[in-house]
Amino acid sequence: MKREMHYVVKDQIATLTLARPKQLNALTSNLLEELADALEEANQDEEVRVIVLTGEGRGFCAGQDLKTVSPELDHGEYLQQYYHPVVRALAKSKKPTIAAINGVAAGAGLSLTLACDFRLVHAEAKLSLGFINIGLVPDAGAPYFLPRLIGAAKATELALLGDTISADEAVSLNLATRSIESEKFVEEVTAFARQLADRPTKVIGYIKQLQAASYENNLEEMLAQEIIYQSRAGKTEDHRHAVESFIEKKRPVFVGR
Amino acid sequence: MKREMHYVVKDQIATLTLARPKQLNALTSNLLEELADALEEANQDEEVRVIVLTGEGRGFCAGQDLKTVSPELDHGEYLQQYYHPVVRALAKSKKPTIAAINGVAAGAGLSLTLACDFRLVHAEAKLSLGFINIGLVPDAGAPYFLPRLIGAAKATELALLGDTISADEAVSLNLATRSIESEKFVEEVTAFARQLADRPTKVIGYIKQLQAASYENNLEEMLAQEIIYQSRAGKTEDHRHAVESFIEKKRPVFVGR
Amino acid sequence: MKREMHYVVKDQIATLTLARPKQLNALTSNLLEELADALEEANQDEEVRVIVLTGEGRGFCAGQDLKTVSPELDHGEYLQQYYHPVVRALAKSKKPTIAAINGVAAGAGLSLTLACDFRLVHAEAKLSLGFINIGLVPDAGAPYFLPRLIGAAKATELALLGDTISADEAVSLNLATRSIESEKFVEEVTAFARQLADRPTKVIGYIKQLQAASYENNLEEMLAQEIIYQSRAGKTEDHRHAVESFIEKKRPVFVGR
Repeated sequence: MKREMHYVVKDQIATLTLARPKQLNALTSNLLEELADALEEANQDEEVRVIVLTGEGRGFCAGQDLKTVSPELDHGEYLQQYYHPVVRALAKSKKPTIAAINGVAAGAGLSLTLACDFRLVHAEAKLSLGFINIGLVPDAGAPYFLPRLIGAAKATELALLGDTISADEAVSLNLATRSIESEKFVEEVTAFARQLADRPTKVIGYIKQLQAASYENNLEEMLAQEIIYQSRAGKTEDHRHAVESFIEKKRPVFVGR
Repeated sequence: MKREMHYVVKDQIATLTLARPKQLNALTSNLLEELADALEEANQDEEVRVIVLTGEGRGFCAGQDLKTVSPELDHGEYLQQYYHPVVRALAKSKKPTIAAINGVAAGAGLSLTLACDFRLVHAEAKLSLGFINIGLVPDAGAPYFLPRLIGAAKATELALLGDTISADEAVSLNLATRSIESEKFVEEVTAFARQLADRPTKVIGYIKQLQAASYENNLEEMLAQEIIYQSRAGKTEDHRHAVESFIEKKRPVFVGR
Repeated sequence: MKREMHYVVKDQIATLTLARPKQLNALTSNLLEELADALEEANQDEEVRVIVLTGEGRGFCAGQDLKTVSPELDHGEYLQQYYHPVVRALAKSKKPTIAAINGVAAGAGLSLTLACDFRLVHAEAKLSLGFINIGLVPDAGAPYFLPRLIGAAKATELALLGDTISADEAVSLNLATRSIESEKFVEEVTAFARQLADRPTKVIGYIKQLQAASYENNLEEMLAQEIIYQSRAGKTEDHRHAVESFIEKKRPVFVGR
């Protein structure tokens, strides 16, 4: 079976690289299966403390490869079978997830980044939800994530207009965590991932679970949730070490436990 | 019965114009009934692919006309009878809705624009939720829509302070889609509506239903919803035509079916 | 019992001042109990029309005082016992609440401001959620309030990165209502509180209840809620007086009833 992506773990950082550069890393059923597997592996691997999703070549991901699907395809079934396992693997990941958007991100290519915690965008990258331009609805989790991330006003505009936006516009919409100049892209993404990998990553997992719970719970329920997670966080090795370091005025070294 | 608004359908665009210019198009029970009827007509009319709501003269809508209501009025009953049919007709519309805010939008005049998909604002228009200035709560859907559109921080400020903001401020709050210079207002609104009318408008209806569902559903429920709507979108004439055009490298012409 | 805060009511404005300036007003169990009591008092006192929370000295609040808690502490129980009564007292307050952030606001110090309606920030103040830096999850209501206030994209960044931001950055994130220059801080906070105290504050309470309801209700439920609250607002002394003043072209004087 042809491998359409690369999976590398180095220094506790798992990097998943979409690798169909000639097609701007457009997604196929095969690539989506590989991606879901790789994400599950990264989620399970205790050595991995940060997950980076990026693309090979000049594009990040042009979305679904239209040339690989039959005109008779039921799009709903395809979503269920190929996209949703990837969306779920990202959404339930207890590790910080970074979309390193090295170039164009369109359609489902952009959708998948919305299920990540951070979107680091190459200064010259173009972003577009785009689905409406071919008569489709935004999918792969976008209808769930986008209004929560940036508010319904701009989510509606991006979804109904299908406009292409620049990295700077994405920053001003809060859609991008930051825009990074071309020559510094790899270096800054690596530094950002490193910084996260050196944090109390087990507790980051707790924060992510709390955040995910926020929209499905009212205030009292969320107060109950924070009791549970803070109680757990307070018992982690990293928290105990942080308190000791604070008292000893030393810089803590976190191990993710 | 005196007509207090105009309803015109031209080139697949329904334009609803509030027409009490001397009162800055302040809303009366009669005007609200006409507006609800006109919106229902636009929603039902298969020829209509875009709905534009605007005002005659120098104002968009100054809100409820206080001079036309009795001091003994029960405001709750009035909302239920006159405003909520309008809010529902906008909220459930499967067609893209544009508020072309040609001048002052205050109180319920601003509220009604929040149930629209886009707010195109005249550069010199002033916007204000204003209710608190006369001892009332924001109504006509504002308590539902505003925090979702722009986040609760700014929604609270606009609601509790009742401040008047400029078109530029509205853009920076994401409340306005864009601000348009005076001399270009009609032209740009028309072009914006035209652009939308030429899109796969049936699928826009699906996107709107997905977006409306987003805040009432969790991730799994939204993934189930996108399966349903994408399956439908994939079977539309517009999508099939778009895929053919893509392969033939032609520009697609969408018919809204 | 040592008093670790001041509570002053003057001109209908209750000012609650955290008063452990040498510790940058870091929170202790004692201070949190005093704060909950003071907030309940302000909530109950019919003379009070606005609540201001601020800090003595150069800091607003450095968060939990780590030196006052045992390493064996169960953080969940501590939250439940000491923090949640404060969060609830702020969240359910029917009066406008202003966090006057006169200096550094970190950890739970920042969290408590998120349960307020307004955050007025000293131009040189630094803000940080910070919890992750010591291996804890954001608490004291932050997981509930932050994504609602400013959207999940930036809420996730602030929570997972624990970055310190400036007053200007807080304004651009919509987290701060405004940034105020040092020499004008007290004066502008007082004027802001005064302006609110002179508004129809009973109706502000209704608006706050509507806003709080917004995220737990769908459109139809919110339309039903606004019927109830607008009916009540329409019967207040302040609304009736506002309508009379409007007709007589006088400036209304509101009494908060």
